[in-house]
Amino acid sequence: MKAFMDNEFLLSNEMGSRLFHEYAENCPIIDYHNHLSVKDIFERRRYENLTEVWLQADHYKWRCMRACGVPESHVTGDAPDFEKFLAFAKVMPRLVGSPVYHWAHLELQRYFGIDTPLTEATAPAIWNKTAEMLESEGFDAVSLLEKMQVKVICTTDDPADDLFYHRKIAAESGLSFAVLPSFRPDRFLNIDNAAQFEKALTQLSARYGRIESFEGLCDALKKSLDYFADAGCRVTDHGFLRFRYASCGNAAAIFKKATAKELLTTEEIAVYQGALLRFLGKEYAQRNMVMQLHLGPIRNNSPKLFASFGADAGGDSIGEATNPFQLSAFLADLERDDAMPRTILYNLNPADSAMLSTLAVDYAADGAKVQYGAAWWFHDHIRGIRAQIDQLLETGAIASSVGMLTDSRSFTSFVRHEYYRRILCDKLGALVEAGEYPADLDTLGTIVEDICWKNAASYFGFKL
Amino acid sequence: MKAFMDNEFLLSNEMGSRLFHEYAENCPIIDYHNHLSVKDIFERRRYENLTEVWLQADHYKWRCMRACGVPESHVTGDAPDFEKFLAFAKVMPRLVGSPVYHWAHLELQRYFGIDTPLTEATAPAIWNKTAEMLESEGFDAVSLLEKMQVKVICTTDDPADDLFYHRKIAAESGLSFAVLPSFRPDRFLNIDNAAQFEKALTQLSARYGRIESFEGLCDALKKSLDYFADAGCRVTDHGFLRFRYASCGNAAAIFKKATAKELLTTEEIAVYQGALLRFLGKEYAQRNMVMQLHLGPIRNNSPKLFASFGADAGGDSIGEATNPFQLSAFLADLERDDAMPRTILYNLNPADSAMLSTLAVDYAADGAKVQYGAAWWFHDHIRGIRAQIDQLLETGAIASSVGMLTDSRSFTSFVRHEYYRRILCDKLGALVEAGEYPADLDTLGTIVEDICWKNAASYFGFKL
Amino acid sequence: MKAFMDNEFLLSNEMGSRLFHEYAENCPIIDYHNHLSVKDIFERRRYENLTEVWLQADHYKWRCMRACGVPESHVTGDAPDFEKFLAFAKVMPRLVGSPVYHWAHLELQRYFGIDTPLTEATAPAIWNKTAEMLESEGFDAVSLLEKMQVKVICTTDDPADDLFYHRKIAAESGLSFAVLPSFRPDRFLNIDNAAQFEKALTQLSARYGRIESFEGLCDALKKSLDYFADAGCRVTDHGFLRFRYASCGNAAAIFKKATAKELLTTEEIAVYQGALLRFLGKEYAQRNMVMQLHLGPIRNNSPKLFASFGADAGGDSIGEATNPFQLSAFLADLERDDAMPRTILYNLNPADSAMLSTLAVDYAADGAKVQYGAAWWFHDHIRGIRAQIDQLLETGAIASSVGMLTDSRSFTSFVRHEYYRRILCDKLGALVEAGEYPADLDTLGTIVEDICWKNAASYFGFKL
Repeated sequence: MKAFMDNEFLLSNEMGSRLFHEYAENCPIIDYHNHLSVKDIFERRRYENLTEVWLQADHYKWRCMRACGVPESHVTGDAPDFEKFLAFAKVMPRLVGSPVYHWAHLELQRYFGIDTPLTEATAPAIWNKTAEMLESEGFDAVSLLEKMQVKVICTTDDPADDLFYHRKIAAESGLSFAVLPSFRPDRFLNIDNAAQFEKALTQLSARYGRIESFEGLCDALKKSLDYFADAGCRVTDHGFLRFRYASCGNAAAIFKKATAKELLTTEEIAVYQGALLRFLGKEYAQRNMVMQLHLGPIRNNSPKLFASFGADAGGDSIGEATNPFQLSAFLADLERDDAMPRTILYNLNPADSAMLSTLAVDYAADGAKVQYGAAWWFHDHIRGIRAQIDQLLETGAIASSVGMLTDSRSFTSFVRHEYYRRILCDKLGALVEAGEYPADLDTLGTIVEDICWKNAASYFGFKL
Repeated sequence: MKAFMDNEFLLSNEMGSRLFHEYAENCPIIDYHNHLSVKDIFERRRYENLTEVWLQADHYKWRCMRACGVPESHVTGDAPDFEKFLAFAKVMPRLVGSPVYHWAHLELQRYFGIDTPLTEATAPAIWNKTAEMLESEGFDAVSLLEKMQVKVICTTDDPADDLFYHRKIAAESGLSFAVLPSFRPDRFLNIDNAAQFEKALTQLSARYGRIESFEGLCDALKKSLDYFADAGCRVTDHGFLRFRYASCGNAAAIFKKATAKELLTTEEIAVYQGALLRFLGKEYAQRNMVMQLHLGPIRNNSPKLFASFGADAGGDSIGEATNPFQLSAFLADLERDDAMPRTILYNLNPADSAMLSTLAVDYAADGAKVQYGAAWWFHDHIRGIRAQIDQLLETGAIASSVGMLTDSRSFTSFVRHEYYRRILCDKLGALVEAGEYPADLDTLGTIVEDICWKNAASYFGFKL
Repeated sequence: MKAFMDNEFLLSNEMGSRLFHEYAENCPIIDYHNHLSVKDIFERRRYENLTEVWLQADHYKWRCMRACGVPESHVTGDAPDFEKFLAFAKVMPRLVGSPVYHWAHLELQRYFGIDTPLTEATAPAIWNKTAEMLESEGFDAVSLLEKMQVKVICTTDDPADDLFYHRKIAAESGLSFAVLPSFRPDRFLNIDNAAQFEKALTQLSARYGRIESFEGLCDALKKSLDYFADAGCRVTDHGFLRFRYASCGNAAAIFKKATAKELLTTEEIAVYQGALLRFLGKEYAQRNMVMQLHLGPIRNNSPKLFASFGADAGGDSIGEATNPFQLSAFLADLERDDAMPRTILYNLNPADSAMLSTLAVDYAADGAKVQYGAAWWFHDHIRGIRAQIDQLLETGAIASSVGMLTDSRSFTSFVRHEYYRRILCDKLGALVEAGEYPADLDTLGTIVEDICWKNAASYFGFKL
């Protein structure tokens, strides 16, 4: 029996253990997609207690608590901080097999040096010890990132954003890591969400001049892209409930219809989104920015949670499979026009994983630009990560992968890179163990380092 | 090498073995969904031979025989009982890796004390020995259930049913277990199946008064629900080939159209089904009944089998993936109206498992009411059960699960609870073995007992 | 740690090892579906170097090279042969976990007796040694097949083909194996591909008389089928991007519309394809030919690769899930008319595997005619093969399976049968090891031989 979450956690063979400890463990972290608060970084935010660190904004933990029957008062409600923590601690032993169980313990170990499993019984001592530590030096937002050897942070930002804190950090902070914006124009693509679309246009107009047409929108987005590029942006991001794409049609007329509050057909939405995506893809390619496509969630399913809390309350889930014909048409149109940006495809519906990982390899006539992305959200657990790695081993080339990211709002979530690296090293080691690959530590070690950070550095164009 | 199906069957680690033998093995069984004949229970039906017990109504075994080329005469045809048994015995060794192979041997072991693998050679002796035993005491329908410590049986019943045998059992039998009806109104939802719909209306009218409108149907179903509740019903059930749901529209007009034999559009079917489901969901919530949704089969594919045998001939298979937007809209509408019943989502298309298990956690603002259900039908095998457990470990909370059910027509199928429990304990033990969970037998034992029966008792509201 | 790809490659337990070495290893090969060049067989083509053998027509290897960033000049471009080989050798160590990595090394071992892993460093020596061997006797196309004990080859051929080389081989060659055509009428089903459809009609008209109607097309295809049957054809094949089927409608009128270059609706395409498929299915049944359905790819995604190279450039991927209702309607229509041919269902979208494997068992009223086919294309790797075997174990009967095929254009790809057999034997052995099946070597050995070749011989009707 292996000891609980010790140094060899998730490492079941010797080669895997060596790969992790000799190669992966100390690699820097390039977290090319997350939702961290740049303000918190700039202000070197401090935390009073574990509830603030863990439970204030983490819908992963909220969902676990709800699934165990914790009342909402102790999840997102107004119960006192310690009671919320206690409710979570009580639930922990019942989260056997959950990634949240592992993440929480990895965080206790790496950030606080606490090896004790969290239970109702151990909760008070852990609460007190961590509260004490959080008061001391080395536990502000910046220190937490530095502790994990984070070198690049790419946040998620709206085209109308002025990137105030990004610019402050770049100008003043002297941080040991870069904090770069990512361009996420979802609100301008979601033309069927009338209220959100109108607000987005108003905000973008306020920064880049009055927008009265599709052409005007494109011009404003171009200006915003230049502004983002100037702030060091290397990455863009798109989230799709349903990926819709049509090659032909009159996007300008559909824009007019939408701004006149007329109802749009599904076809018109596809035409509009197709035109805007084509435009954006080309602009990304010109600016050498990476395009990320996040496919397949369904959001805000619970009207009660949405009413009481708003978005990102943990009421989201996995949605429909993506239409491969429409996605392929999009990428083909870009390739045909010599305008394919480097592109990462992430899926939430596991039914899409084989489809996307094979599609990614199709568009390599101009180099391996399209990647099948990391295990995302509901797949960020042992089996999900293994499945993504297997998919790349079998139908792509794991050695070319840009590896893991946190996609997180939490400053302590960077242990997820370690989680991924352990699983990766264990898998590669297991192939050696099984006689499926030679016992060539050097070559595998090089591949591990490439996946941990070197591929990302060169793919996104970061100089470390 | 492990011995063949001995005491440690499916248990590959020490912790798993202890969890099974010290906690799971002797837990009572709450079989909250099956298709047992209540008449057989009331009459304490006896069986003449293994063909009667095994092959008279078990489409799982029929399919295995057909897949091995056994002619239909020896499957559902008129070959003599012993010849059918021999045909099955001949096929058994070729069913390597099939759940039917394990179930049959577990049944021989647990009900008849026979450890010999069934083959053509061993068939005559097994036939004779079991026939002898079946003649003795302790092998009638009731005894078979008692032998497995069954405490609750929920059968599957039509709203027009008078529950004659349920009432007889409740009034007279003094059984050691409860036999409760489940409300399954599929025939009233399937408005596109004109002949079936008309017959259903006629039968329901006969019991609860003439039905001439959608409102009238709802009234009659309400009366039926009260009648079921009075008979102890705690569970309802729905089967969907395609789950269709629309929030708005005139269900009353569509009802009129249907009863006037006019053709309905797909949209009209969705509107009608949406309205009736909303109505039913609310009625279930009011009566504190659990709503089961079985999603995704495709039935009666073989016209020859359907012609010669009718439904449930083993000519069914896995159908389409379920539309998450429509399912989410249904549950959201119930939540919005404070009318969410406790709900279990079962899927047949494995492409839906991650979608449903994540969706189930979304609607927990009023408590953990929605569950992702057990591995169903074509997934009731080692890998399928493991997949369902993994899904809950990773994206829900296995500790809250209401566990297994038989969904069976067979009185000897209750070894499937043991099958599930062994796999569950082995999985939890394997997590300890791998250092992914502390070696905490007490906590895991509690979780195991919860999943085996305690969660079901409190979720469905059974007092044992 | 197991040695790298030695005699026990993929064999992790004793029973599996015995099953492979005592039963599977020396079984003959019936390769009932591939894309070999019959001309190369007839002419006993010889190869100058490994690039010719490996890289001239193998889109599997091309994709691996592209995924690792090799420029197209060294993939399908005009770089010299040795440079292409070197580019591939350089990439090899980065293909950890890829089936191509295993296939290439199995081919070096079995055809050339080379055990050294291929890397940039070992490439020159391997290039020289293999070039020398390729010059000697025993390395022409026919010898490569004989070395693997190939007994039957079924190629893939258009109905308009004159089967020139098949007939030459049958008449003259005295080969130790049969080379039989397969009937693949895709071009006549793809009525929405106007240019291809017109060309196909012209070519078929040239051989079998002017085609001016749907009836005329059916007549010509009947003549072609007779011609194929006369050349020993036992197998037909169909590839579907989207399987579309409608039972009713006027195919003759749609044929007219198409030949008049009018645009067809999706419904019309489904009606036309439905009618032609029904016609063909019946004709296959009459001639006792097997019908293969390959479901779910999406082809020629990269416009650049298609422009520079054409089809089969490695720009294909996994497409949509198949509609089970339409597929079921097709098979039901055939069964209803007593016209069900033996049929094999292959899927590319893994979301379909459980659906197809369960559907296959539904139509067994007249015998086990429908099979769930081998792991195809992007699934021809360890995990994919295991998944297909598991699917059959759990929901069908692996013992009835017709086993593996190469589906390949490469004369050295027959090691894939060994790859499959090792995985199969290991899996069956693992069941024994785990106590899930008795340690009955004889029975399992019989099953292994059945799957390796005997089932195929009787299913397709080959006399060996």
